[in-house]
Parts: sequence; structure tokens; C-alpha cells
Amino acid sequence: MIAEIICVGTELLLGQILNTNAQYLSQKLAEYGIDLYFQTVVGDNIERIKYATNLAANRADILIFTGGLGPTQDDITKEAVCSYFNLPMYLDENVLSDISSYFEKRERPMPEAHKKKAMLPIGAKILPNHHGTAPGVMVESNKKTIIFLPGPPFELIPMFESYVEPYLNTVSQYKIYSRVLKFMGIGESSIEEELEDLFSNQSDPTLALYAKSSEVTLRISTKKMEEEKANEILDDMELKIRERLNEYIYGIDNQTIEEVVVDLLMKKSLVLAVAESCTGGLISSKITDVPGASNVFDRSFITYSNEAKVNLLKVNEQTLKDYGAVSKEVCIQMARGAILNSKANVALSVTGIAGPTGATEKKPVGLVFVGFSDGKNSDFCEYRFLGERKRIKELAACYALDFLRKKLLKNY
Amino acid sequence: MIAEIICVGTELLLGQILNTNAQYLSQKLAEYGIDLYFQTVVGDNIERIKYATNLAANRADILIFTGGLGPTQDDITKEAVCSYFNLPMYLDENVLSDISSYFEKRERPMPEAHKKKAMLPIGAKILPNHHGTAPGVMVESNKKTIIFLPGPPFELIPMFESYVEPYLNTVSQYKIYSRVLKFMGIGESSIEEELEDLFSNQSDPTLALYAKSSEVTLRISTKKMEEEKANEILDDMELKIRERLNEYIYGIDNQTIEEVVVDLLMKKSLVLAVAESCTGGLISSKITDVPGASNVFDRSFITYSNEAKVNLLKVNEQTLKDYGAVSKEVCIQMARGAILNSKANVALSVTGIAGPTGATEKKPVGLVFVGFSDGKNSDFCEYRFLGERKRIKELAACYALDFLRKKLLKNY
Repeated sequence: MIAEIICVGTELLLGQILNTNAQYLSQKLAEYGIDLYFQTVVGDNIERIKYATNLAANRADILIFTGGLGPTQDDITKEAVCSYFNLPMYLDENVLSDISSYFEKRERPMPEAHKKKAMLPIGAKILPNHHGTAPGVMVESNKKTIIFLPGPPFELIPMFESYVEPYLNTVSQYKIYSRVLKFMGIGESSIEEELEDLFSNQSDPTLALYAKSSEVTLRISTKKMEEEKANEILDDMELKIRERLNEYIYGIDNQTIEEVVVDLLMKKSLVLAVAESCTGGLISSKITDVPGASNVFDRSFITYSNEAKVNLLKVNEQTLKDYGAVSKEVCIQMARGAILNSKANVALSVTGIAGPTGATEKKPVGLVFVGFSDGKNSDFCEYRFLGERKRIKELAACYALDFLRKKLLKNY
Repeated sequence: MIAEIICVGTELLLGQILNTNAQYLSQKLAEYGIDLYFQTVVGDNIERIKYATNLAANRADILIFTGGLGPTQDDITKEAVCSYFNLPMYLDENVLSDISSYFEKRERPMPEAHKKKAMLPIGAKILPNHHGTAPGVMVESNKKTIIFLPGPPFELIPMFESYVEPYLNTVSQYKIYSRVLKFMGIGESSIEEELEDLFSNQSDPTLALYAKSSEVTLRISTKKMEEEKANEILDDMELKIRERLNEYIYGIDNQTIEEVVVDLLMKKSLVLAVAESCTGGLISSKITDVPGASNVFDRSFITYSNEAKVNLLKVNEQTLKDYGAVSKEVCIQMARGAILNSKANVALSVTGIAGPTGATEKKPVGLVFVGFSDGKNSDFCEYRFLGERKRIKELAACYALDFLRKKLLKNY
């Protein structure tokens, strides 16, 4: 079973809106194990919609159209596609009366143009729209299933869930179950090398790597009828991967590094303080994005100036002179200072050069030190990140949190 | 001149990532008046990439590919497209040496797989990648211009701006010039009402409103050959709008509220300190996103616990007991405390309930107080935001910065 998604709308071709519908529908099709080889975006032009329909009809069984069901002159998706399939259309009186009563309730006359929303291909199954007035349509022609959905996501999503998913369930042979392992501190190609045998022999489950800005994700997927069997297979593969690369795996599925860290702090009943220089508050902001962070997070010192480092964290002025603010020495003093000046048991510190200015020959943009202290023991790690200012801040924040994660796992 | 966008990546077909590149590229093409009739997404499959290339080559002059330039086995965009166009490829020694030196700098061996990033079609113009190691490519074949761009947006966007836009400028017949006015503290429909006459009579320039999470933007656009003439028209309309709504307009085009604030602080030679509770570092992080922030930003106190507010900002314990941490009284004491415990001349403070827990009958989730102090005078503002935790943090941070902007404009 092969599907194709055709999103209709000149506003998509002008970049005025982001095509979130294509992502949503693709995810859903993948879940039901329905193949998708192409997504197409086409404007509100009858010939080009017919052209795209022709291509799709020659390479797919299910054609899903989004957009162009509204009342304006530009809304021509149904007309174009039905013309391609030689499907005659009729005015559905029930749909029309729903639309008129919508306007009656609002005490407004129904503009004539809205009538076209009730024009449907003969044999159509109507997909009710509970969040707007243009109904969706499902119709069969030439052994193809043609589905029309409205463009606004808040109309499309509930309609899809209520009326299209039950249909997909009847045609799908299996569902795809996946688990995502999230890696930090190791590159895409190194993971591929370490797991070369698993990659080259993959059939069920399959493995797919994806590099994001601060991390790499590995998706394990299996096509199954039963969830229990699927979970066994996913567990088994996860275990094989963890045997080799466990230290780099910070979380699974939608977990963020800050959620993992807050969760660890809670489990270990620890309270955190943070001392940030180049990240300027980003680490603290990430931690406080997590609901319940107030249980494990006490305070942060955003010590951007040297004076602030001395005043608030008691960093030694001589150390600043001798080694500079971006140094392992200052970084460790910052972490110790955060412990001494808070009620926390563990502290994380960051100092670095986010750029674009501030670099020297020995200290390039992207040089970042991350420090840790629990009052007794301290440690640090040195990183060199590439990119512009915001990216360096983001990488430094994520790697600092991962450094903390490893410390928490090892020492408590 | 007709362009076509082909985004390559099975992860797009599985809905694992949102196709923001298609939107970005579409916007840019529209700006240069280059027609775009189709966007296509295709997976990492050599036959299907060639199939999509064939379609595009038959209906467009400029083919823009994104994704699939990386080192893994799935990255086959260049290979597939060059095979379709019969473009022989060669190993570019300069590109290869750039990639190896990237790994040398990081003291890591270059995995063999990365070599393929240096495989380029003969006659290629290399588009340097300043944020990654896979270069972009521009090459001519059969009177078509073929452009390969990396998939990650943080690599694609700067590469497009530096190396593709200058090319588009040489082939475009006219440009669409726009200016975006950015509003905060006023809703979309109120703006529409205030500017009703301008909206109903628009032809050149045109006006388009767009509501985002914390702000509303108004785009003024005009199609012109000459920048000077376009700017006259944009200036004229901007002036008309500012005559009515100036106080709500915090910036133009891509300016962020934090850039506007940092710029104002610089112009007025002021230094800022921040005291954050519910925003947890987000305001400080936004400010330090702006290059040069170190000139105007001294330090922040992220006082999440009450104890931290007392210790670091000398908030009165009795005030905390009497009014609670989320109150105008505490908010003002936090701003004053930030001034007294820093070298700053102005301070901004925020305390509120980000949720999902912590609300009481009188203090709902979304209640936020923002405070200001310059050591002599203090002021505050109360807000009630709707939404979940991260959205409330974001709104609180943006509105706090806008509150500071208005203070800086009025009083200094």
C-alpha cells in the first residue's frame, strides 16, 4: 500500500506558512506501515493540480490532498482532482444545510461562495469538520482512494484522527513501532562504525541515524501486528546497542537532556546550583523548562563580567589575571563558588568564548570549559565548538548538562 | 525564471523532522521574484531522486536540492543527480584537506566515510560551509542551474545567504521589497481596526498581518526594480502606521526585542542586571544571545528558591511571608536588590507562576510581575499569560524586555 501527500496552496509556495500538515500526515502513515515515497506541494492552479494528481495516481494507491476546500476563488482542489478522475460532482443538501445553519447561529447571511464547500464528487464519503465548515471527503476512483482534507491544522488533525485513521487501520497490514535512542558526545559516523554489523545486517528491526545540532538520534523500528512482540524486538536491539555505546545514550524517545538531568537530581535527592558565563542563563532556563525543577534547582549566578565572578562566586582575582576568565582554573572556582554561596549539593559551571569577538590566538571562539563541584571533589572538561554565537551557547549548554548527567550517574 | 525545490531525506517522509528548509527557500525565491510551482520531498533512494530530478529538469530552470550531502550510506543526493545529468565527479583535494583539518583540530581521526563529502561534479562551484564540513555545490548542466545545499538549517541558511543569494540577484527581473513592523502588547484585530483605511485601500504597497506567539508582525511589500524607489514607498507607509501605533512597534524586520534592548542600553551607556525567578534564566539568555551584550550586561541572579531571593537580592523575609514570592512587592525588591548587588545602573526583575503547579485561587498559573529599578525609582507591571510552562516563560521574558524598552525610551 503506497500513499502520496499533495499539499495545495500558493501560500506554501511563497513560504508564508510552514507545512506542518505534511509532517503530521507522514508520521501517521509511517505508524500504519503505509509507504510514502513523495510529498508534493503545488499552488492553487487547476492545471498544475491535475498534473500533480496524474503523477501521484501513477505511483500511489492512496492520494491525500490538503488545502483548497474553502470558499474563495483560489480553492479549487476538489474541482481539479475530480476533473482529472472524471468524477461528476453534485451539491450535497445536508452539507449545505450544515453550513447555512453555522451562519444562522452567528446571525450572519451565508455568502454565496460558501455553497461550493457542499459540492462533492458522487459516491463521496463525507468527513465531518468539527472545527470549521468545509467537510473532508473520501472517494474511490480507478482503484485509488482519494482523500481531501482542509488546510488549517486545527481542522485537519481532529478530522484525520476521527475519520481517516479508522480507514488506514483497515488497509494496513501491520503497524510500525519505534524507539529513538538519543546520543551526545559521539558523531553520526562513529556510531555507524561501532554498530557496523547491526547496520549492515538490518532487516527487522531497522536502524536509522539522524544528526541534529547537539546530538545524534538512532531510531529502531519494527513492523508488527502486536505491540508486545514489537516491544520485545525493540528491547533486544536497544540492549545490543547499549552494550557498546551506553555511556553516550542520554535518553530515549522525546526525552530532553534537561529532563534527564532533573529526573536524576530528583532520584538522588540532590539540589543544583549553576554558575554561567558564556551560556548567559541558557542552562538555567533549560532546567527550569522542566516541570518540578523547583524541587532540585536552587539558584544560578549569571556572572558575565569578571567583577561578577569575583563578587558572587569568590573567584580569585589573581587566577583571573593569570589564566583569564576562560580557563579550567576559573571554571572550577566558579563551580566551587556556586556550592559555597547556595544551598546546593552539586554545582555546574561554564565559561567560554561564544564570539564573535573575544577570541585570542590561544583561545578561539568556541572554546568552552565546563566545571563540576560537590564541595569536596571538582572536575572539568574542555570543549571546542564551531558555529555562531547562539549555536555555541546551545552546544555548550547541552554538553554541560550531559557532563553533569555523567557525573550524577557515576558518583551518587 | 522558474525554480524547483527538492528536499531529500527519508526522515522527512517519515515525519521525523519538519521541513523548514522548504519554507525558507520558498520565501527567498519569492523575494527575488523567481517563480516556484512545485516543492517535492523524496527519500534517500537513488532511483526516486533521479525520477524527481527528471520531473524538475523538465519544468524548471533552477533546481535546488537540500539534504543528503553527509558521510553516511544514505547520503546520495549528489551521486543521484550527477548520474541523471551525466556529470562526472572528482575528489576535490582542497575540500578534502579542509575536512581532514577539521578532524585534526579536534584530535580525532577522520572516518573514511567523510571522503565522499569532497566528491564533486566537474565544473562545480563550491559553496563553503562555515557551520559544518559538507560543502554546498552549484553547477550548470543542460542550461539548468543545479544547487546542492546541506540539510541542517543552521548550515543551509548562512550558506544560502552568502553564496546563493548573490547568484539569484543576477538572474532575477525585479525584487519584492518588504519591511516588517513588529508589534508587542496589541492584538492582530486591534491593529487591523486602527489601520482599517490603509488595509481596505491597499494596492501598492500591500499589507499583511501575522500573529505569532508573543507578537504581531505587519509586512509592507512593494514590487520594484530599484531599491531607492521601493524604500521611499516603504518609508512612507511605515510613517503612516507609526503616526497611529508607534508605542507598540518595538522593532523592524529581523530585529528581536533583546537586540532592541541591548542597542538602547549601548546608546544610553547603561549597564543592566537581571533578577529572574519564573523565567529561570531565559531573559539573561536572550540578552546574551546578542553579540556585544558583555558591554551592557553585568550579571543576573536566578533566584528560584525564596532563600536565594533573600540571600542574593536581600528580599525581605517578612515581605515574602506577607505577600508571597509572586507579588509586586517582591518583584520591586528583587529589582532593587539587583541594583544594590551589582555594578548595574538599571535592573529588570520577574517573578511569576509558570505552572503547571504552584497556583492558588488568587494566583493562577500565568500570573507574572515584572519590576524595574534604577536605584532611585522603581516600577512594576502585572501580566496574566495563558498557556503551558514554556510558553508562559517565553511570553514573560518578551514582555519583560518590552517593559524595559519602554522605560529606557522614556526615562533616559
